[in-house]
Amino acid sequence: MSGGAAESRPAGPVAAFAHRAEHFRPSPVRAVFEHAMRPGIVSLAGGNPDTGVLPHEVLAGMTARILSERGPEVLQYGSGAGIARLTGLVCELMALGGAVATPDRIQVTAGSQAGLDLVTKLFCDPGDVVVAEGPTYVGALGVFGSYEVEVQHVDVDEDGVDPEAVAARIDALRTVGRTVKLVYTVPTFHNPTGVTLTEPRRRRLVEVCAQRGVPVLEDDAYGLLGFDRAHRLPSLYSLDPGAVIHLGSFSKIFSPALRLGWIAAEPSVRARLQIAAEAVTIHPSVLSQELAVEYVGSEHWRPALDRAAARYRARCAAMMEALETYMPAGVRWTRPCGGFFTWLDLDPDADHGDLMHRGLEHGVALVPGGACYADGRPSTSLRLAFSAASEAEIAEGVRRVGEMLRDGVRRRAGD
Amino acid sequence: MSGGAAESRPAGPVAAFAHRAEHFRPSPVRAVFEHAMRPGIVSLAGGNPDTGVLPHEVLAGMTARILSERGPEVLQYGSGAGIARLTGLVCELMALGGAVATPDRIQVTAGSQAGLDLVTKLFCDPGDVVVAEGPTYVGALGVFGSYEVEVQHVDVDEDGVDPEAVAARIDALRTVGRTVKLVYTVPTFHNPTGVTLTEPRRRRLVEVCAQRGVPVLEDDAYGLLGFDRAHRLPSLYSLDPGAVIHLGSFSKIFSPALRLGWIAAEPSVRARLQIAAEAVTIHPSVLSQELAVEYVGSEHWRPALDRAAARYRARCAAMMEALETYMPAGVRWTRPCGGFFTWLDLDPDADHGDLMHRGLEHGVALVPGGACYADGRPSTSLRLAFSAASEAEIAEGVRRVGEMLRDGVRRRAGD
Repeated sequence: MSGGAAESRPAGPVAAFAHRAEHFRPSPVRAVFEHAMRPGIVSLAGGNPDTGVLPHEVLAGMTARILSERGPEVLQYGSGAGIARLTGLVCELMALGGAVATPDRIQVTAGSQAGLDLVTKLFCDPGDVVVAEGPTYVGALGVFGSYEVEVQHVDVDEDGVDPEAVAARIDALRTVGRTVKLVYTVPTFHNPTGVTLTEPRRRRLVEVCAQRGVPVLEDDAYGLLGFDRAHRLPSLYSLDPGAVIHLGSFSKIFSPALRLGWIAAEPSVRARLQIAAEAVTIHPSVLSQELAVEYVGSEHWRPALDRAAARYRARCAAMMEALETYMPAGVRWTRPCGGFFTWLDLDPDADHGDLMHRGLEHGVALVPGGACYADGRPSTSLRLAFSAASEAEIAEGVRRVGEMLRDGVRRRAGD
Repeated sequence: MSGGAAESRPAGPVAAFAHRAEHFRPSPVRAVFEHAMRPGIVSLAGGNPDTGVLPHEVLAGMTARILSERGPEVLQYGSGAGIARLTGLVCELMALGGAVATPDRIQVTAGSQAGLDLVTKLFCDPGDVVVAEGPTYVGALGVFGSYEVEVQHVDVDEDGVDPEAVAARIDALRTVGRTVKLVYTVPTFHNPTGVTLTEPRRRRLVEVCAQRGVPVLEDDAYGLLGFDRAHRLPSLYSLDPGAVIHLGSFSKIFSPALRLGWIAAEPSVRARLQIAAEAVTIHPSVLSQELAVEYVGSEHWRPALDRAAARYRARCAAMMEALETYMPAGVRWTRPCGGFFTWLDLDPDADHGDLMHRGLEHGVALVPGGACYADGRPSTSLRLAFSAASEAEIAEGVRRVGEMLRDGVRRRAGD
């Protein structure tokens, strides 16, 4: 692997990986999702939606009807852009975030992650820079790494990312000759922190990026999962569709198993994304698309989504209460208004060690904060998910986190 | 787009595409699949399986049962390698081609095309070379182009590709300092020519590539679609699992709509492919996987596959008969023993013009041969698919191809 002469190269495929394969390493949090399944572990790690709220019998009936009435068609190759009724439905979903989208701007993808991959593939050469929140979605780091893109983080506070700091970072990077290709953001119920970008900051962020000709890549997986439906902020895309590329997902508002999401972009960009998408997946699963059209277009969808949001709200409240009860002094956490996550800031000057393994030793699975940064910094923070655990599990899991943090302090004090 | 100074760069995303995006152009055959749907056009273009043979009511019942009995589980995130029962089933399918595979070597993918993308992503840097048959699968050219890989073609004859010619090409490329990363081949019922690599050539191809440390990438979408079940050749993978990466597909033996395929590779390679796959699609659709396990593992699958193969055999016979009847002198074609396609060689010294549009003018959709080469050469050949048209349509379509070819000759003679 160290590039020796041809005759010393080992036979077989391993010697011949591409340069980018250096980045195809297990993420530091990959193991936690396996450990999280172990008996006795309370998992506050994974951002899983609660699929228990879905009307399974209704979905069974819909799927059976689709296959029985239109089998030869829905089992055949489909359109590369996505089936027409689904792109229409996506426009309706985007209207809930205030956006006026038309089907010629919608590219259906095999999940929002695939959308993120395609946009990165279309825009980014090795060595290019993406500016992203710090911390950011761990799965986005995997994508950017696979294209040898450098991620530059801009800190988030309770109001999201500071647009002036983003602008200053872009300008500073350009001054030293770097090429900034995208500003990647999860503006609503941010993964991993749970914070939401305020409306003034939304307007300003889109503005400073448009001025600099850097597209904003808005990842909006959680936008419809606010605890208070009345209080919904405009999507970045709705503020300037020419300056923003929008990633949508059916994973959190319906089911992640179907692998279905979308990209909204300028028609000329969408057309290129379709060509890139066809080279990877040809098209997303037609059965998934047909089921999404039937279900999300039916009267069953909204009540189930509201049931889910009510559960997430109650679980978030339970987590906030448990944090008040069990956290040692000096720990701070975010207070989300939606989504799946809260974020804990620990003492930034202390050595917290390997939080993932320390958590597992105490019987709780969590995502260590360092995993959400591209620069491999040590963890002085952690992410807790409240979406997929019961209120009792949350209380117990947070108690264990508190125990772990106190134990860490004691152990260090005793060193 | 021509790389002017920063101040002259147009605002917005278009200016900032990656270098590879130059290759995200519509393929020359993309339009034909749209035109093929026009009234009055006989389509011999697309390699669609006949989904009319599938037992739709059975599939409807299976899907309903899966959702109704295990809804919360099958609608949740799944395993990145694929669900365990499916990797087991894949090993059984591979055994039909003589291969002994184990689940730790199987990576389930969101279609075989996604497998091709992942292998290319893992192995190929820009400027690397892939040696492939000439002509080759048009969708593979899209993948290789998207990674800025150069394709070097080695001609096929009625027995497939000549292993000695492949070896000589690799050696010649190395002599001039090029890096050959993969030998890509569709050895069985080749797309687009329909020919099958003979058993001696299979053994020798694997041998010469292993000697040179170049992995063979075997694309085996059609291996189970032979007209004569008794006459089955060993897969390349079965001959040397350490030297071959195998791509399998459920698209032709079940349904392309589900987007489900697999890669078989050394465990260490498979593990890297899983990480790369998770960054793109997280996992393939769980519903697709569950349905494939139920259906392909049931007593319904093999009879439907046999019904399909019988239809393809009859349609191929109809095409051979029509070719005998309608082709002008000097046209030669392959005589497939399975798969979906035959390949016509026209007069190599004549200018055949734009065969796609000439075909459409005569009311027949076909794939011009030039589209199946990476070098943009003019078409002196064409691909006809017999998989998705009735015998009457095939006769009429081939008659129109003959008319087109005679018309071309007449027009040139009259110029």
